[in-house]
Amino acid sequence: MTGRQANKLVALGTFVHCHSRQAIEFMHNSVVCVDENGKIVRIEKETGEGRLHAKAHAVIEELGWHHEDVNWHVCEPGQFFFPGFIDTHIHASQYPNAGIFGKSTLLDWLETYTFPLEASLASLPKARQVYTACVRRTLAHGTTTAAYYATIDVAATNLLADLCLSIGQRAFVGRVCMDDKGLNPDYYRDESAEASIQKTKEVIEHIESVDPSFDIVAPILTPRFAPSCSKEAMTGLAELQREKNLAVQTHISENKGEIALVAKLFPDSDSYAGVYDQYGLLTPRTVLAHAVHVTTEEADLIASRGAKVSHCPCSNSSITSGAARVRWLWSRGIEVGLGTDVSGGYSPSVLEAARQAVLVSRHVAMGVEQEGEEKEAAKLTVEEVLYLATRGGAKCLGMEERVGGFEVGKEWDAQMIGLAVVGEDGEKTGEGNVDMFGWENWEERMAKWLYNGDDRNTKKVWVKGRLVHERK
Amino acid sequence: MTGRQANKLVALGTFVHCHSRQAIEFMHNSVVCVDENGKIVRIEKETGEGRLHAKAHAVIEELGWHHEDVNWHVCEPGQFFFPGFIDTHIHASQYPNAGIFGKSTLLDWLETYTFPLEASLASLPKARQVYTACVRRTLAHGTTTAAYYATIDVAATNLLADLCLSIGQRAFVGRVCMDDKGLNPDYYRDESAEASIQKTKEVIEHIESVDPSFDIVAPILTPRFAPSCSKEAMTGLAELQREKNLAVQTHISENKGEIALVAKLFPDSDSYAGVYDQYGLLTPRTVLAHAVHVTTEEADLIASRGAKVSHCPCSNSSITSGAARVRWLWSRGIEVGLGTDVSGGYSPSVLEAARQAVLVSRHVAMGVEQEGEEKEAAKLTVEEVLYLATRGGAKCLGMEERVGGFEVGKEWDAQMIGLAVVGEDGEKTGEGNVDMFGWENWEERMAKWLYNGDDRNTKKVWVKGRLVHERK
Repeated sequence: MTGRQANKLVALGTFVHCHSRQAIEFMHNSVVCVDENGKIVRIEKETGEGRLHAKAHAVIEELGWHHEDVNWHVCEPGQFFFPGFIDTHIHASQYPNAGIFGKSTLLDWLETYTFPLEASLASLPKARQVYTACVRRTLAHGTTTAAYYATIDVAATNLLADLCLSIGQRAFVGRVCMDDKGLNPDYYRDESAEASIQKTKEVIEHIESVDPSFDIVAPILTPRFAPSCSKEAMTGLAELQREKNLAVQTHISENKGEIALVAKLFPDSDSYAGVYDQYGLLTPRTVLAHAVHVTTEEADLIASRGAKVSHCPCSNSSITSGAARVRWLWSRGIEVGLGTDVSGGYSPSVLEAARQAVLVSRHVAMGVEQEGEEKEAAKLTVEEVLYLATRGGAKCLGMEERVGGFEVGKEWDAQMIGLAVVGEDGEKTGEGNVDMFGWENWEERMAKWLYNGDDRNTKKVWVKGRLVHERK
Repeated sequence: MTGRQANKLVALGTFVHCHSRQAIEFMHNSVVCVDENGKIVRIEKETGEGRLHAKAHAVIEELGWHHEDVNWHVCEPGQFFFPGFIDTHIHASQYPNAGIFGKSTLLDWLETYTFPLEASLASLPKARQVYTACVRRTLAHGTTTAAYYATIDVAATNLLADLCLSIGQRAFVGRVCMDDKGLNPDYYRDESAEASIQKTKEVIEHIESVDPSFDIVAPILTPRFAPSCSKEAMTGLAELQREKNLAVQTHISENKGEIALVAKLFPDSDSYAGVYDQYGLLTPRTVLAHAVHVTTEEADLIASRGAKVSHCPCSNSSITSGAARVRWLWSRGIEVGLGTDVSGGYSPSVLEAARQAVLVSRHVAMGVEQEGEEKEAAKLTVEEVLYLATRGGAKCLGMEERVGGFEVGKEWDAQMIGLAVVGEDGEKTGEGNVDMFGWENWEERMAKWLYNGDDRNTKKVWVKGRLVHERK
């Protein structure tokens, strides 16, 4: 025993990722080598049955790595590595309300459930409890990157950033900006546009101080949504955005009542997307959550600005917002990722969001009266929703060069997936809700995982090479 | 130690059940006594904080029960007893295909995925493997009663009945009747109408021989659906039904292509429901799965015959069948239960079916253009979907006097539910996806369980007083 801490990683077995929207790539008997910076430096695909370990040893020798510097992670038969999930829209502050929404829709949901809980997180002990639970829980579900909304509180938002950094989840952390006196309650809003900007800067500075290169945690500008923000606040945030090329997140066209409200509040803009564009917030670094009811003109504007959409199917169904048209957004040239939108969405799992993306796409298809190509095209496939959950999300957050798939040069944000096996006697070995009978091909395994998988199937989770979650 | 086997049961703690469609009843500090026949003989509600155990002892003394005859089951704080779930529509034979459906819709789904798997269960070892896994898995999810479709095979269907009886799940077991040469493939159909009836009788006789009073396992007549059955087969089954007042299950109006096919195949009937009525299968003991696209006239016909509907939201969304209107079915006077419809539906969990019933009801509401009462009414509540999962299902299967709630005279078909608790440090104690922060009221606990609960929260399951599942 040298007492040296292994700082490199070699993963062996089957690797699965999305090659494109249409196709999943399966790499069996393969080796992935991850260096001390969490970067993939070598991939050997399809080394051949029985030759995997020998090949792995040869490769680390070629790399000049010492055995005692390497953590080995080997898939058992039927297990596989998959890229970590990317949640492009989640309110960490609303996590305790997951499942609590009654029959509400957006505007009364905010007032009844959401603002009171968010306001209460000005208490730092409570914020610590809620944010720790949220980060741990989403990591357990394989979320290696999350775009978080915190609250308006600076200290609590900084705490969320600190927790992500220490626990090891890659995160964009946004202090929520909401200064308008109309919709926002007196007990929960920024005092002024200046305060919105100033407090946002404080959070940015804090994150710069704890993670200067935004390696794991980065700030994200977070105007809640147009009805919550003054023109001055939006303009100020846009200036900040241009200055530092920061990421931006907000909501758009979730619900018809909200759209009517925007039209009333911003009579000078010709659309909801137009409001954000007018005030400089429609940028290639902007993630717009929902976009359920955007018009063709708005979609074209969003596409022309290079802004992205976070599709939140669980939320959209739960609070009766509508059914967003992912295929159509794609066809207009907009990149799309998935958001759990906790707690408009009740589940913190991106895998659940992926399967609900399938279901919502079926409801979109049902809305196409005529049988034929358009109806068929509306339906998303297993491959497509897993793409949304990984590479799609990475593109939304400008991370596609760093995460979302297994390629040399990318960082090792990954999960190890294991599925239970049913024996000949009908009794199973392994935990979770996916039962493999042994005759399934790999496409069928992926489908079974997508539809019945949960955190029990996520055995290990890594972010940038660091093991950040492991099931006992 | 007397070596006597305890044969009675006393449950202590919080009991929760649906009082009506609109209201959940919470009974805290309560005692339920179950006799050696699995029947609830005594309930003491709200004995008062700290007086529960004393009251329980007094009650068993009054009943003249010996302590050594009693199994005690005590809820820990936050745990509660809930009635077992009732799955009114599930194809046990399709369980291995859960999650495997691609972009198919009903008719190509049958041909591509379903018929080949069902046919393969003529192999008894395979049938034993699949059926054991299905019964164990659904029990683990709290399903205490299931209305099963098996296959056309007599021996394998009998095996399913045997397994339900030995493992202890209450079940209606149906051999699938499908004799028509049109839709059914050559490799998987009954040889003739006579064979359909004869083989059905063989299964009924088998079940009579193993469970003469249909205490746990009962036969159910199962014409697959009109397009699969000859008029002669349906007529013969209807005769059997009248003779023994047997339960019946079939499918109706799941998909528009199917409806068009029925219209073509049965030009003499004026509707799909009309076909079943014409051949004597629309009875008070009939459970019709789906009923997505039934017309007002059909609904009125179904209601007038006292037939029931099994709502299968997961399936209807997954294979793009449509969005069934539960509120509307209720308003026409039809009783509704929930079906997982494995494997048209991918999840074997009735709790998942309940939450998907919420989601589908939101899509029904979205389809109501005008804001107002009708749109609002379309949405189902937490209370209503839990009602569907318990008492609604019991009514569908004619079991409402025996199961579905906690009342003296009913049988003890129940589950013990436990939810994880998040400590002040944000770390949780307990397993599963529901995180209780401690400030939730009981209505909120139920909502959180509904939306994020799974089999990990189902700690114990009883059928007719017998403990049939317990989490390790």
